[in-house]
Amino acid sequence: MSDFNVHILGCGSALPTVAHLPSSQVVELRGKLYMIDCGEGAQRQMRLQRLSFGKLVAIFISHLHGDHCFGLPGLISSLGMLGRTGDLHIIGPVGLKRFLEPILELFCDQMAYRVVLTETDTRQAQTVWEDRSVTISTIPLKHRTPTQGYLFREKVTPLHLDKASADFYGIPLAAYPAILRGEDFVSEVGEEVIPNSRLTKRGREARSYAYCSDTSYLPNNAPLIKGVTLLYHEATFLTSESARAGQTGHSTAREAALMAQSAEAKRLLIGHYSARYHATDDLLAEARAIFPCTEAANEGMCLEL
Amino acid sequence: MSDFNVHILGCGSALPTVAHLPSSQVVELRGKLYMIDCGEGAQRQMRLQRLSFGKLVAIFISHLHGDHCFGLPGLISSLGMLGRTGDLHIIGPVGLKRFLEPILELFCDQMAYRVVLTETDTRQAQTVWEDRSVTISTIPLKHRTPTQGYLFREKVTPLHLDKASADFYGIPLAAYPAILRGEDFVSEVGEEVIPNSRLTKRGREARSYAYCSDTSYLPNNAPLIKGVTLLYHEATFLTSESARAGQTGHSTAREAALMAQSAEAKRLLIGHYSARYHATDDLLAEARAIFPCTEAANEGMCLEL
Repeated sequence: MSDFNVHILGCGSALPTVAHLPSSQVVELRGKLYMIDCGEGAQRQMRLQRLSFGKLVAIFISHLHGDHCFGLPGLISSLGMLGRTGDLHIIGPVGLKRFLEPILELFCDQMAYRVVLTETDTRQAQTVWEDRSVTISTIPLKHRTPTQGYLFREKVTPLHLDKASADFYGIPLAAYPAILRGEDFVSEVGEEVIPNSRLTKRGREARSYAYCSDTSYLPNNAPLIKGVTLLYHEATFLTSESARAGQTGHSTAREAALMAQSAEAKRLLIGHYSARYHATDDLLAEARAIFPCTEAANEGMCLEL
Repeated sequence: MSDFNVHILGCGSALPTVAHLPSSQVVELRGKLYMIDCGEGAQRQMRLQRLSFGKLVAIFISHLHGDHCFGLPGLISSLGMLGRTGDLHIIGPVGLKRFLEPILELFCDQMAYRVVLTETDTRQAQTVWEDRSVTISTIPLKHRTPTQGYLFREKVTPLHLDKASADFYGIPLAAYPAILRGEDFVSEVGEEVIPNSRLTKRGREARSYAYCSDTSYLPNNAPLIKGVTLLYHEATFLTSESARAGQTGHSTAREAALMAQSAEAKRLLIGHYSARYHATDDLLAEARAIFPCTEAANEGMCLEL
């Protein structure tokens, strides 16, 4: 199993269906869990998918429509009952506090941990989270209410020491930090220079994950997510319903694929299916016609990056 | 199928488990649906159990703990999206407005129907709903927060006309209403008296359903629900955990059975199982030792009254 995975807890849209749950995902990176959106039922899906509540560090909400955030009250309460003590950070558009503060007061006054709410300006891309493993920044989206996507970019060490080579050249330990910063080694005595390229290996490329839902088709966002390892893009409708997509601020499967293509994504995952579609085959076919490396999200799915 | 049924949407307790959903039930009476409690996931369960959203007339909340009401925001929103226009009544303890009003303002400002919130005093039994088919009254319960159960009592016509007998005695149509009120028939001419008992048959007994959750064991409530057709009583714990039951304001399976026994209920249904129990066998056995006609609730179950 990879140490960077995306778990799909729900990939339906606003109306409840038997087939899908409302939007929620968990990004697992080096043992920590970051939730994106929290539709009703997300906490139970975590149990079903064996994702540990204790590893959840923060929740990122795309927008304040119920199918993306009505699972928060239950999840917050359960974490309290399970004895959480560490802060839980929830990041989302303005309105998050108006939604959650009354609930925290009414239902969660005896919890042993703190819920830290951060409201963001959805109109500009900005970094909203940073830790040892990842940088998470927002992606401005266009929907019927202020909405933002999220870009997860793994932190990697650009250079790794080639230990055998360092030993061969007798490099002292004290010089390692400078070498890992990319400097050549210069011996004190003989002014011998060992080029950095002989002492290091390049680390692997940083993996990244972009979540774009809910949104109209926004080709201008391509540079923001250029070369992303995996792009999740909503595909609420087929092109045959593109008028409806336009009216409601959603995308078609074709537009999701065009976005993946212009962003030069490695892979595309579609979701947020309208309740009118009883199967995802047609949506998937429409996207694959443009971007072959597309998959259709489903509850319980885990994608390794 | 009976015209009076209880559908179990969720019968777990506060912590999410793989086995159960939080509390929610739908009482179906003569084609109308009345929901009792609305834990997270209730709206999806309605879909799974093929209960029509359009037939839902009112929702009755026992108390403001999340596992009994966090499904409301999603259900209210979905009804709006599905085009509901008729009022939806929600009845529950004080706090209901503080919980729902901010959500209605933030998420439901464009709905075509009205949510009518009624807060009740949980300390006294009172009638909170009445229509052609049913009278619904509260049952004061004892929990860590103001809590009430609900008693559904079907309205029945006490007397039915015995048409064959009425024809035999040549009873004029104009006399029917008085006979159905229980009067004897007195002929205008001969002062002949036909006793009411020859012209009518007694209607069947009114069926009733009592919902008692969450609550400590309250034997004093027995007269309120005397002879109830079906009693749902929470049985969060086994007697081996009775200290914990006492601390948390819950009942044991034994206490649920004692309640059914002293109320002379026809049948008992237990539920609201603590997450510590992976099966209901022991809870059911404990209750049946005292009250044999006991069943254990399960999601998807439909009990005909």
